[in-house]
Amino acid sequence: MGTTPSSKIKAKVWVVEKGKIRSHSDYLATEEPLEIRLVANGVRRTVAVTMRTPGNDFELATGFLYSEGVIHKREDIRRITHCVDRQIDIENRYNIVNVELAADELPNLTSLERHFYTTSACGVCGKASLEGLRSRNFSTITTKQKVTPEILYSLPEKLRASQGIFAATGGLHAAGLFNIEGELLTVREDVGRHNALDKLIGTALLGDYLPLQNNIVTVSGRSSFEILQKCLAAGVPIVCAVSAPSSLAVALAEEFGITLIGFLRGERFNVYAGVERILI
Amino acid sequence: MGTTPSSKIKAKVWVVEKGKIRSHSDYLATEEPLEIRLVANGVRRTVAVTMRTPGNDFELATGFLYSEGVIHKREDIRRITHCVDRQIDIENRYNIVNVELAADELPNLTSLERHFYTTSACGVCGKASLEGLRSRNFSTITTKQKVTPEILYSLPEKLRASQGIFAATGGLHAAGLFNIEGELLTVREDVGRHNALDKLIGTALLGDYLPLQNNIVTVSGRSSFEILQKCLAAGVPIVCAVSAPSSLAVALAEEFGITLIGFLRGERFNVYAGVERILI
Repeated sequence: MGTTPSSKIKAKVWVVEKGKIRSHSDYLATEEPLEIRLVANGVRRTVAVTMRTPGNDFELATGFLYSEGVIHKREDIRRITHCVDRQIDIENRYNIVNVELAADELPNLTSLERHFYTTSACGVCGKASLEGLRSRNFSTITTKQKVTPEILYSLPEKLRASQGIFAATGGLHAAGLFNIEGELLTVREDVGRHNALDKLIGTALLGDYLPLQNNIVTVSGRSSFEILQKCLAAGVPIVCAVSAPSSLAVALAEEFGITLIGFLRGERFNVYAGVERILI
Repeated sequence: MGTTPSSKIKAKVWVVEKGKIRSHSDYLATEEPLEIRLVANGVRRTVAVTMRTPGNDFELATGFLYSEGVIHKREDIRRITHCVDRQIDIENRYNIVNVELAADELPNLTSLERHFYTTSACGVCGKASLEGLRSRNFSTITTKQKVTPEILYSLPEKLRASQGIFAATGGLHAAGLFNIEGELLTVREDVGRHNALDKLIGTALLGDYLPLQNNIVTVSGRSSFEILQKCLAAGVPIVCAVSAPSSLAVALAEEFGITLIGFLRGERFNVYAGVERILI
């Protein structure tokens, strides 16, 4: 079956510091394409190719298909395998994941075309993007759970401390799943921040603990429309980011009852939506 | 024609600090979808929808089409307009850009399907991604220009100082174009780091100063395969990032003769490829 690609690789770099140069051995986060194929009744179709850091590929494929609305529950998947096609070079088989569906037929894949694609004749706009989510039957998150500022302050450090690949390479996105007491349950890393979150959500779906209605998700970077869309699909009531949210991330959070925290650093953060879940 | 969307919007936020909460007025970076349409001889086709920060939309569309290989020079474009279709709501017209080509026919758009998509029967892999670039006739960058460490040290601060939207919102990606003496020529910002670079390259194409063979490009985040691919398309010999590169970014830089700098902070940086352009 060849060798599973590593999530980091050793590289020789030159370090320049205060005008002096020296050779140094360092690690880089691996970036390789992953092809996600759907299979139903022997019929195969490639639905996405994403640049990702190898590791948790099955979870990545699962989380991607779930947040895009192609699958809805664990039972929709019959089997997930790495490619075993003998026509494919041995070292590349781990870059292809086959998701075999329980259904007899491949789903209508127009749902995979970008959801912010016009939902009406009005052309694309942020409002249409939000309406598109309503049309996918997402409903407002009504979790009554509250959280104290002290718990929130502690999350970025816990996330960072458990980022194994980041520690080695100094640069990788992460998504962390916490319970409402601030205990870190799962962390996933990737060169792509959407991928890190897909891996996290895919892990939850395969472990059969979706929706994440009593959980907090923390992401390492900024929060965008797409990050919030994935959290909404997973039912997450509280989303924290270390950096800024975009305007459309805030609009989505307001519209669907998500508590959105940004600039979570030290003993400080901003609340952009859903302040009623902050216990002060 | 309606109102051009602003690149930032005012928002009310709650600031929680040391257990106390207060209301505060803040700015968010705007995130709205942009639909890019190609037009030839009256025939229109949507080729991409990207979540972007409004501003420099024509340059974004141009840079995107150029780095994807759909257009090659300024003369390939007859005209760029915002949508004037009266069927489209007035406030959304600025979210659609029509790029009218000089050609009589729309190009074969299979080139827009991800380039790292299999170039052979081998399945997807990093190696195939690099081969795909060779097949697009990209050649090794042979610029002999060198740069001193002192010039490189100065770039992130110059970039940051000129980021108008970042200053207001605290979170936005940027790409900066510098000459070989370290003078900042152009800066472009966006919620998406690829978009910021597309805007920069599109500006260069529309200004007719491609290829950027005596220039340095600095990006605010990490460097990935896609960032390097865009820089290669624009002929950039020296690419700097404030954070880490991925494995495939380094492989691309090595393969095509690009000097790749990472972790450019204070009086220190790492050189991952093309060290011969660093003058020590």
